[in-house]
Order: sequence, then C-alpha cells, then structure tokens
Amino acid sequence: MKEFHAEFRRAMISDVPLVNLVVKYLIRTKGKQLRPMLVLLSAKACGEVNEATYRAATLVELLHTATLIHDDVIDDSELRRGFASIKALWRNKVGVLMGDYLLAQGLLRTVKTNEYHFLEITSSAVRRMSEGELYQLQKARQLNIDEAAYFRIIADKTASLISTCCELGAASIYPILKKEGDRGWSYREALKNYGEAIGIAFQIRDDLFGFESKNGSVGKPAESDLKEKKLTLPLIHSLSLADKSTKKRIISLVKNGKAAKESYREVIDFVSSNGSIAYTRAKAEEYAAQASEALMALPESESRSALEAFARYVIERDH
Amino acid sequence: MKEFHAEFRRAMISDVPLVNLVVKYLIRTKGKQLRPMLVLLSAKACGEVNEATYRAATLVELLHTATLIHDDVIDDSELRRGFASIKALWRNKVGVLMGDYLLAQGLLRTVKTNEYHFLEITSSAVRRMSEGELYQLQKARQLNIDEAAYFRIIADKTASLISTCCELGAASIYPILKKEGDRGWSYREALKNYGEAIGIAFQIRDDLFGFESKNGSVGKPAESDLKEKKLTLPLIHSLSLADKSTKKRIISLVKNGKAAKESYREVIDFVSSNGSIAYTRAKAEEYAAQASEALMALPESESRSALEAFARYVIERDH
Repeated sequence: MKEFHAEFRRAMISDVPLVNLVVKYLIRTKGKQLRPMLVLLSAKACGEVNEATYRAATLVELLHTATLIHDDVIDDSELRRGFASIKALWRNKVGVLMGDYLLAQGLLRTVKTNEYHFLEITSSAVRRMSEGELYQLQKARQLNIDEAAYFRIIADKTASLISTCCELGAASIYPILKKEGDRGWSYREALKNYGEAIGIAFQIRDDLFGFESKNGSVGKPAESDLKEKKLTLPLIHSLSLADKSTKKRIISLVKNGKAAKESYREVIDFVSSNGSIAYTRAKAEEYAAQASEALMALPESESRSALEAFARYVIERDH
Repeated sequence: MKEFHAEFRRAMISDVPLVNLVVKYLIRTKGKQLRPMLVLLSAKACGEVNEATYRAATLVELLHTATLIHDDVIDDSELRRGFASIKALWRNKVGVLMGDYLLAQGLLRTVKTNEYHFLEITSSAVRRMSEGELYQLQKARQLNIDEAAYFRIIADKTASLISTCCELGAASIYPILKKEGDRGWSYREALKNYGEAIGIAFQIRDDLFGFESKNGSVGKPAESDLKEKKLTLPLIHSLSLADKSTKKRIISLVKNGKAAKESYREVIDFVSSNGSIAYTRAKAEEYAAQASEALMALPESESRSALEAFARYVIERDH
C-alpha cells in the first residue's frame, strides 16, 4: 500500500496551486482505500505484484475519488468521512472540476503507459456508475422500484467498480488474453465475478444497517435513504408481500419525504414484521457464497484466503 | 454532417428513460456543432472521410456537450443557447451525472472500436480543459492574471479541444504514425497546430466583443466577465501600461464585482483609451495567420481553402 500511496499522490499533482491544495486535503482525509487494496490482493492471488499493479490501483482510486467528489455535489453534502466535503469547502465549481480533473488524469496516465487493457476493463464501470445513478434517480422519483431494478442499481453503482478492481489486479499480472480458457483468461474472469458478487453483497449489507434498530432507535441510513425516496431491498421485499391498501399507505409515507420521525418508525416496523430482514440477509449471504465460489478457479494462496475472508467480512461487519 | 448526426444520436442513447429524455432535449437544443465540422473538414483535407471520421467527430461532440453541461452546473447558469439548461430543468444532480455519462460513453465507444490513437489525442485535452478552468478560478480569485496566464488559460480551456478536433480528423485518415516526418505525421502535426492557433484566435475574438461598444452601450460579455472577475486580454494589456494608482483603482472596481454599471463603464473607457483594443485585435490576427501558415503543409484542396476561410472568419465574425 505504501508504493500505491506514492503513485497515487504523483498521479494527482499538478502545477496549478489550487489543484494541489485540494489534493493535499484529499490525501489528508482519505478513506479506507478498500479498492486499491482489492487490486493489490487480486494481483497477489494471481502472481507477483508489479509496477502495473500500482498503476491499476491508482487508476481505480482516482476514479473512485472523482466519483465521491461529484457525489457530494450531486447530494449537496457538507460532510465526507467526517470532514468537510470539497464542495462545502470550495463550492460546486471546484467540486465538479476536481472530479473531472481526476478522471482525466486517470485516463491520461493510462494512455501514456499504453495500458489499454486497463481502460477496456474500466470504461464499462465508468458508464455503469453514472447510468446506474441516473436510473436510480428516475426510479426514486417514480417510487416504482422492484427487486430487479434494485439489483440493477446496486450492481451498476457499487459492484461495477469493485469488480473492476479485482479484474484489474489480475490483468496487471496477465495483461494479454491469449485465448478463452487459458490461465490468464480464467483468473481474470474469476476475479471479475468475485468482485461483482462481493460488491452486491456489500451494498445489501449497507442497506440493511438502517433497518437494524440499535437500542430501539431507527437506523440513520434508512432514515436518510427514505428521505431521498431510495427504496432498498428490505422495504421492496415487504412491499411485494403487502396487500394493496397497506402498500398504498407505506408508499404515501415515503412519498412525504420530509414527514415526521413517526412515519419512519412505521415503515421500519412494517419491514421488520414481514421477515424482510431475514430475506435480505439471506440474499447477502447468497452473493458472498457466490463470490467465494468464484475464487476456487484460483490456486490456493494466502491472498486467496484473504479474499475469501473479505467476502465473509463484507456481510458480517456491523459498521 | 448527416452521417455524424446519426452516429452522435446512437452514441448517447441508453436504456434508462431519464437519460433518453435528456438526450432528446440535448439534440433539440444543439448548437452550431463547430467541433464535429472541424473534424470532418480536417479529415477531408487529408483524404476521404470514413467511418472512423464520424466516430472521431462523435467523440469530441460528446466531450464538448459533457463540458457544457458541467459548465452550467459550475456557473449556475439557467440558460444555454437561449434554452433552459439541463441543470435548470433537472437540477445539479442530473447535470453532473449526464456530463459524466456522456464522457463515459465517449471513452467506452472508443475503447470498443480499439481506436486508442483517438484516446491518445483526446486525453490531454480532457486534462487541459479541467486544469485550465481550475487555474482560471484561482487566478480570478487572486486577480493577478498577466498575459502569460491569460494565454495559458485560453489555450487550455478553448484551444486544446479545437486542436484535438483537427488532429482527430487527420488521425481518422492516418491512424498509424510510421515515422516522424512522413505524410501522416506531418498532416496530423499541421492540423493540430492549426487547431491550437484558431482556438486561441477564436477566444481572443470572443473576449473582444465585450469591449466593443454598440450604440454606446457596454458589451454584455465584458460585464459578465468582469462580474466573475475574469480578466481578459484587453484589460490585462491596459493594466500592464497603467501607473500604480490607476491600476489600484481599476482593480478595486473589478474586485467589487457587483458594483454599479458606472464602474464597468469606467473600466471599459480605461481599456479603450490605452490602445488595448487594437493590441488585442492584432494578437488575434497573429494567431489566425499562424493557423493559415500551418495549413501550408497540406495539399491544396477545397477543404484546405475552407479551413483557411474559417481562420479568417474566426477573427472577423461579429457575433
């Protein structure tokens, strides 16, 4: 990770002082850096981490950082990881532009090293992330999201980039695909599928948090999801079981986004009484199991075990 | 241009209805499409327009459209080409995301057709545009922009993409560069330089509009540039000639961005009395001439004449 950090910092630097000011702040307030870690682990599960691996890790972290900065403009968020967001500190202007700048740097650096296989893997995730977000926006407005739409949204918004990380790791070891079914091909395919599955499991777990009452109080995330009219799996499942009038009542509670705390309480109770929490948990487990299974195409190693452990962590974590 | 339109429309379509709704609106309110036209003309000046030329034209128009949508979020603009902006109709959320989506589509389509030489040409413009905008933002805040900074900003913000258009046109005919100095190489280089020069001339002409009084009233653009504390060449030149106290007075007038109309009048008069309009016009002509000269590396043709005429149009136009 130390090598990655150096590369990541180099990739963001500019000769425009304002850019470097923001970059410094970004480095200081960085998150868990799960994505570059997955690139490194995936590469290690296929062979020896090399220079290209660090560049791949940098590419996804640039992309992820750009997305977060744009997200804060989109959601008008004042906070990110407990710190003031870029948008809050420097306004929308700098937020949009810094996001674009980081995207451009990712593209430019990859083009400069001729690592077009990285772009091939990454470009569909870039599309899926923005398209998924737009699809969610539309569905939230119409409030007609069903299970299929939910899975499409979380696959596009969350799983696509995590899948990209894992495939990139493998591609840094096997840059050229000779023929379908050879080792490089099957490793890349396995890690891509692993990533997609843990990405989905990860998001389902995230969406569950809000519905798990702690000390009897409503989970914060559910409250904010409901405020934005984002329906997540537990509620979608409950709605699919409810009779027409109950469904209507619950939908109207959600629709009045800014309603009182009591409405949220009622929605949460509705979800709990339908077995939807257990249903959602089972779904998360299903995807985690699918992820572990995908790993079986890789040779046994410490890194493979770490990836397996990560699949369990994703659904068992309680924060 | 008809072929290009079909390709451009295909490139934006999605299976997310909200995306298509915005796309329809974008097509209905499209601008002059100068950039794809330059791609086509440049290609024709090198040989026969082909399928790759239309894809290149689509790539730049996607990029340009994305930039405009992001610009409207950045500048909080309600209008674009006399129509309501995307941001005004669907808010910042959709503005940021649609911009990202169009960027992603440009990238994805180019990766899919393996036209990496297009990415090589385009990626540095993507970086220059966002970095140039950030640099301008910083300079505007400090109000210490000099001629060198001005030229850097307009080259990065405006000329980089126009230069990309012209080079892309040539690259659609000569995709592979064999060796320095061969025909493909020199055509691409010539058109790249042509584009960079007309881009700069174009922006200088734009910046002049505001200082040309029509019926004695102050030009709108200068007023809005001054409000945003963007110093352009005429004013920069006048400031460089002024004595310390005049300089201080003018800067303070600009600093009080929201000051009365009379202050703008004073700034405009200051600029006119210093010969800065003539100086600026000469600069625009210098770059237009440079552009025409670059074209001499190409064989004589109708398209080359059209490009020459365009270089004159760029500085002579009065809107």
